[in-house]
Amino acid sequence: MKVSRHKAKEILNSIACSPDTEEIDVRESYLRVLAENVLTERDYPDCRKSAVDGYAHIPGCENYISVGETGAGRKGADSIRGDETVFVMTGGNVPDNALAVARVEDCTVENGRVFIPQCKNGENINNIAEENMKGDVAAAKGSVVTDGLYPVLFYLGRGKVKVYKRPKIGIFVTGDEILEAGEEYRKGFVYNTNKYILESMFRKYGFDFEYAGHVKDSKEDVEAAFEMMSEKYDIIISSGGISMGKYDYVKEVFSTCGYEILFSRTAIKPGSPLMAAKKDGCTFIGMPGYPAAFMTNLVFYIIPFIKKCYGYETFENEEVFVVMGGKTSSKEGRFDINRAVVAAENGVLKAFDAGTQKTSHFISFAKVNALLLLDEETGSLSAGDTAKAVFL
Amino acid sequence: MKVSRHKAKEILNSIACSPDTEEIDVRESYLRVLAENVLTERDYPDCRKSAVDGYAHIPGCENYISVGETGAGRKGADSIRGDETVFVMTGGNVPDNALAVARVEDCTVENGRVFIPQCKNGENINNIAEENMKGDVAAAKGSVVTDGLYPVLFYLGRGKVKVYKRPKIGIFVTGDEILEAGEEYRKGFVYNTNKYILESMFRKYGFDFEYAGHVKDSKEDVEAAFEMMSEKYDIIISSGGISMGKYDYVKEVFSTCGYEILFSRTAIKPGSPLMAAKKDGCTFIGMPGYPAAFMTNLVFYIIPFIKKCYGYETFENEEVFVVMGGKTSSKEGRFDINRAVVAAENGVLKAFDAGTQKTSHFISFAKVNALLLLDEETGSLSAGDTAKAVFL
Repeated sequence: MKVSRHKAKEILNSIACSPDTEEIDVRESYLRVLAENVLTERDYPDCRKSAVDGYAHIPGCENYISVGETGAGRKGADSIRGDETVFVMTGGNVPDNALAVARVEDCTVENGRVFIPQCKNGENINNIAEENMKGDVAAAKGSVVTDGLYPVLFYLGRGKVKVYKRPKIGIFVTGDEILEAGEEYRKGFVYNTNKYILESMFRKYGFDFEYAGHVKDSKEDVEAAFEMMSEKYDIIISSGGISMGKYDYVKEVFSTCGYEILFSRTAIKPGSPLMAAKKDGCTFIGMPGYPAAFMTNLVFYIIPFIKKCYGYETFENEEVFVVMGGKTSSKEGRFDINRAVVAAENGVLKAFDAGTQKTSHFISFAKVNALLLLDEETGSLSAGDTAKAVFL
Repeated sequence: MKVSRHKAKEILNSIACSPDTEEIDVRESYLRVLAENVLTERDYPDCRKSAVDGYAHIPGCENYISVGETGAGRKGADSIRGDETVFVMTGGNVPDNALAVARVEDCTVENGRVFIPQCKNGENINNIAEENMKGDVAAAKGSVVTDGLYPVLFYLGRGKVKVYKRPKIGIFVTGDEILEAGEEYRKGFVYNTNKYILESMFRKYGFDFEYAGHVKDSKEDVEAAFEMMSEKYDIIISSGGISMGKYDYVKEVFSTCGYEILFSRTAIKPGSPLMAAKKDGCTFIGMPGYPAAFMTNLVFYIIPFIKKCYGYETFENEEVFVVMGGKTSSKEGRFDINRAVVAAENGVLKAFDAGTQKTSHFISFAKVNALLLLDEETGSLSAGDTAKAVFL
């Protein structure tokens, strides 16, 4: 009944929607995905500019006559004579035949003459197109507008930018034992955690979602939620209600609502109960209720899936090799995902087991920053062994 | 005139404000800083729970009489007889004297009897306090509510949480050569980039700021901006207008407005023009106008400074050692901050120079993810050398 993780990923990749594109204001583009190659629209810089505040001149004289000053965005002298100098502020246009700019702090002005130390030709002048040439690809289609790229789009003078449209994602949580934050505790109950796992992880990636609320553990309520949501969303994500004990009525709801179940368990630990189902344009992802299992499935399967739906060129998790700083337990023949704290030590990424790997435990996520991917053939690892890791 | 980077950091640390605290709804706590140790309020779990959907029983019989079922948050049987079993759903309360839970998929039901395979005592039962004991510190004062900690606060049942108040930060940009996104390009002009560097970097850290706009390069306009902002903000950050050519009038504005200049240049490249000034409760940070210099100063000095003002326990940048994958140029006797792309290769962090380190270039920030900190004694580095890096 369990599908392999490879098969599950293959199925998810095959059903990921291909997003449409839209043109948006560049100010709205943070964490969106480019649907165009962003080209440099002109040479950078497009005129010779001074790199410093200083005197533009032609090296050779002992001192110079100051014939004015200019700053960034202002039109200065087009050319100077051999014994003339123009004071140019940083970023200002350098006269066409000037060959160097001397830093103001290195020059002295005496009796109306500017004494300039010996400069090399080209000194402190930024040449046309030295940074980028018109037509260069500054950022490729499928790139995410991250912290670094976002201001670069402004630097390049973009007013609008073509990005992929975002799929509409709706979330609901099931479970009669779920309390909401602020509600009084009742013994044996648990607080809604999975909604907030999604909220923080999605916020990091700039994924949008609407929360459709907390649905009671009954066939009627789950069916009503599905009927409403299938119309409205491209992707529906639920938490809980799909393990063996409760599985049957969800299956029933699915056939009533016309969903085709693609898989309902995958061979990973923690969190083997993970369901994917499909109906026309709508994908349903049924996540396990345990927060640790929810988080693990989210990172391992769902974030890459949503990245693909968002138009990311590189949507799979980046797996890095780390060196174990201590032991971590894993069962041979099973694919285990263990929580770990990874820190750089003298250029080497060292991983330390979080101390507990039980599916029912979650508090360690306050400190862990990586998941170790331990293949079927791996078994337990000791200090010095290498492991594959995905950063959270 | 230039202060050392150590002295500049010492000054910034000494003027960082000590934040007050406030109690907020846990739903508003993402990226805020804890002003309390978050303790586990009860044992986790606080009753014996089933880790799976299955049959709770006392091992020893060949088959069992089913005497009901229970789920998470529901009160089940307190105790069972030796030949009785209760079906318990994942997270459900296990009868006090049950010694194991067998997975439902491993059991068979025939003629009203449940056939359960041999279980070990304790199998699939989560014991009281096995995850955390009441009073354990789940997260320490001064921790940031990151992706992992945020849902843990909900898991722990917190409705409210005590955090540090945020300083009020106001930003303005100077420069007559600055165009805004969407404005038509004019030769020699540059687009406002620094506002958006701040926006994306601050968004990542959850820092708030208000944008006071674009101020003209005149004494009157800068003075008016200062008068208005000094009253309103704890921290004012400006971009541009403090290099040698324009420095004098800013200095004049400062004395008119009653600010004490703490330093105006620091010994780093790129971006030596960085000004810090203070007046009563208000700190002014004057950042250089070049985007690369702005970004570098922001990462090296200003984000740690603001983290301290936000109450971060650990506010200095984490410096990691990386191994050079190629060469990077640096001048001995100078502290250089070079842009680089760092990637993990077989557990080792390898750094590659961004190709250009000129202060006037910025487009490479679309791809770089780290800054190399190259001390005065370092000089240029080759493949295989180690370097200190700060991730962006």
